[in-house]
Amino acid sequence: MVDIATRVWNHKWKIDPIVRSLIDNDFYKLLMCQSVLRNHPKTEVTFSLINRSSDIRLAELIDEGELREQLDHVRSLSLSRGESTWMRGNTFYGKRQMFTPEFMDWFEALRLPDYHLEKRDGQYELTFQGSWPEVMLWEIPALAVLMELRGRAVLRDMRRFELQILYARAMAKLWEKIETLRDIQDLRLADFGTRRRHSFLWQDWAVQAMTEGLGDKFIGTSNCLIAKNRDLAAIGTNAHELPMIYSALASDDQALRQAPYDVLSDWHEEHDGNLRIILPDTYGTEGFLDNAPDWLATWTGMRIDSGDPIQGAEHAIKWWKSRNEDPSQKLLIFSDGLDVEKIAELHRLFAGRVRVSFGWGTLLTNDFRGLVPNDGLKPFSLVCKAVSANGKPTVKLSDNPNKAMGPADEIARYKRVFEVGRQNPQSVIV
Amino acid sequence: MVDIATRVWNHKWKIDPIVRSLIDNDFYKLLMCQSVLRNHPKTEVTFSLINRSSDIRLAELIDEGELREQLDHVRSLSLSRGESTWMRGNTFYGKRQMFTPEFMDWFEALRLPDYHLEKRDGQYELTFQGSWPEVMLWEIPALAVLMELRGRAVLRDMRRFELQILYARAMAKLWEKIETLRDIQDLRLADFGTRRRHSFLWQDWAVQAMTEGLGDKFIGTSNCLIAKNRDLAAIGTNAHELPMIYSALASDDQALRQAPYDVLSDWHEEHDGNLRIILPDTYGTEGFLDNAPDWLATWTGMRIDSGDPIQGAEHAIKWWKSRNEDPSQKLLIFSDGLDVEKIAELHRLFAGRVRVSFGWGTLLTNDFRGLVPNDGLKPFSLVCKAVSANGKPTVKLSDNPNKAMGPADEIARYKRVFEVGRQNPQSVIV
Repeated sequence: MVDIATRVWNHKWKIDPIVRSLIDNDFYKLLMCQSVLRNHPKTEVTFSLINRSSDIRLAELIDEGELREQLDHVRSLSLSRGESTWMRGNTFYGKRQMFTPEFMDWFEALRLPDYHLEKRDGQYELTFQGSWPEVMLWEIPALAVLMELRGRAVLRDMRRFELQILYARAMAKLWEKIETLRDIQDLRLADFGTRRRHSFLWQDWAVQAMTEGLGDKFIGTSNCLIAKNRDLAAIGTNAHELPMIYSALASDDQALRQAPYDVLSDWHEEHDGNLRIILPDTYGTEGFLDNAPDWLATWTGMRIDSGDPIQGAEHAIKWWKSRNEDPSQKLLIFSDGLDVEKIAELHRLFAGRVRVSFGWGTLLTNDFRGLVPNDGLKPFSLVCKAVSANGKPTVKLSDNPNKAMGPADEIARYKRVFEVGRQNPQSVIV
Repeated sequence: MVDIATRVWNHKWKIDPIVRSLIDNDFYKLLMCQSVLRNHPKTEVTFSLINRSSDIRLAELIDEGELREQLDHVRSLSLSRGESTWMRGNTFYGKRQMFTPEFMDWFEALRLPDYHLEKRDGQYELTFQGSWPEVMLWEIPALAVLMELRGRAVLRDMRRFELQILYARAMAKLWEKIETLRDIQDLRLADFGTRRRHSFLWQDWAVQAMTEGLGDKFIGTSNCLIAKNRDLAAIGTNAHELPMIYSALASDDQALRQAPYDVLSDWHEEHDGNLRIILPDTYGTEGFLDNAPDWLATWTGMRIDSGDPIQGAEHAIKWWKSRNEDPSQKLLIFSDGLDVEKIAELHRLFAGRVRVSFGWGTLLTNDFRGLVPNDGLKPFSLVCKAVSANGKPTVKLSDNPNKAMGPADEIARYKRVFEVGRQNPQSVIV
């Protein structure tokens, strides 16, 4: 068992890399990467770091040299023999050889491309440019590096026992959550917390605690390295970057309207079963479902990632019924801003009516609220998103206008094309 | 930093000795041992384990084989070269060569004598017979072994992360106490918790936490091994066993009345300064002080170890004044049933009027109250006392009739001889 306090202490005098492996990354990034490598290997994209919590002045907290050191370390990583074996030999979602030999050959040779970093107004501008399948793999490591360096900065002046008590309290806090979750019958829950984790060691601990504390209720982790090391299922399907980039590449409004369905059509060809999960909110859930082709209603489930989750789930159930599908056979995955109370409420409301599952992120792997002075470790909203593809800007609307991103005129165009009406703003916790 | 949870986990499958060294013992036992070796080397004594908490059925909790294994291990210990060097070379209470070469030669050759163990009515009868200087060194290790085996028995079926959370909560609990104590100006406090510690590793952790958290307010530990390993002062003076055995050896009532003063007369010859601390309560504080010779009032201070500590301290102040001593120059050491609130209260009431110090025991090194089901780790009142000397029974009265021990007729005789009137019973926490 790792003594986390000692290790954090050690960070002060020796380098302990934040990202330790090319598969210290979310499973769905690898799945999407394989799809992108096949369907859009030449697309040029730019990903950019966006700190939605402007009060957290990252460039004042984090030393630029340290940041470069960690990012350079990520660039030095390549797939190890054992990691390759795990990816080639493992069964993911009941399927062998999920990753094709072609993809694996490419991935074994991969080094992540260069980054561009500068300081502006107390924030870091961090961008990645290059071919889509390469650049997309930067998202999760970049976020994890920034999150962990921010934590290290806040903890830098703490003494050994203070650190030990901090982690003792955080452990007790997480364990109380686990004790609450344990009482929910038929719960199914996965760790989705890599991108905003407090640290690698902490995520690793949290996953082990969930494994012991929740047993079968804990179905796995999105983190491939931890899934491999802890012998757990790797969990995930697809994300907004697919419709965002397909849409940016669309030549006109007609093609734009079709783009999100093209994504799923490509996905449909490649995957079946539990990997067929609709993520409907990129440009407004309502319009997306109204205009969806019937074959999409046969998919296994849907992920609710923005807006009011209760409304979103009710909407999904109504939609399945309208397409003559039995909602009780469908899977709803909640993954937005979850904590124990919301998980319990959503489970109470929807278990039985649909198959319910949860992707628990930031408040699983980074809930240090109230544990240091001035709440210096409170979670904040950092993302790393595709901002352009082949020179054209990307847009995301989601079901929460506070999560929208892209140039204003393009946002207006997308709203018109996707017939998005009035949306209720929801505060973005993380 | 030791990962205590892992170590406790390891206990389940391999032997981790509870007592790791002959100096994993209280400093005052060694000091008294030296005095006894000089003054009463041939006295034959019997020490016996007494569990005042009869609801804790130790023989049902603790396996006899395990208990014997641990006790046998204690018998196998001998002073190491480094330990001997520390005792010979160290400065204790400002004095070099506190331990004489004669004593050290004897101690280096020492192995602890045999024990007698049997089960009766769900309890263990554990007794030690032999020469006083040898047998007396069993008291602390015997208690530590029983306390830790009880803890291990309660924790036996807990899983790894449950254990880690248990210790995380216990650490957070102790640290909150330290944070409270930190705010008390001019506090002086020592660890007196060896005999009823939860475990060796836990005591060691608690001492380190106090060192970091309290700085100069933490003046040291009674445990010689921890003092040595952690480079702290070893703390302690003398205990009830001296007057108890001197009194048992007294040939008649006249000699009995004199015996407690003979103890201090021997001690006066051997020690000065902060080692001259009166322990007045063995046969009632009031009578003891009323009849004390004047030279005793010149001693540095007094230890309050039973009865109402406020009354005891007021009585001490009144007595010093009556003997024309300035109480503000005197040291009062409180050491009975302390926790943070009582420490804060006593400090508030007496700091400045006297020099105040605290010997914090069980609720420093074994406060796991409320942390496991059915409060299975709550502290309990286990002692190991001299019950006879040269065939004659010993008696202790103290200022709390609930702590009295000895045959009823002898208790009556001692009460008559020492003119002990009515006493207020106080509940014995630990």
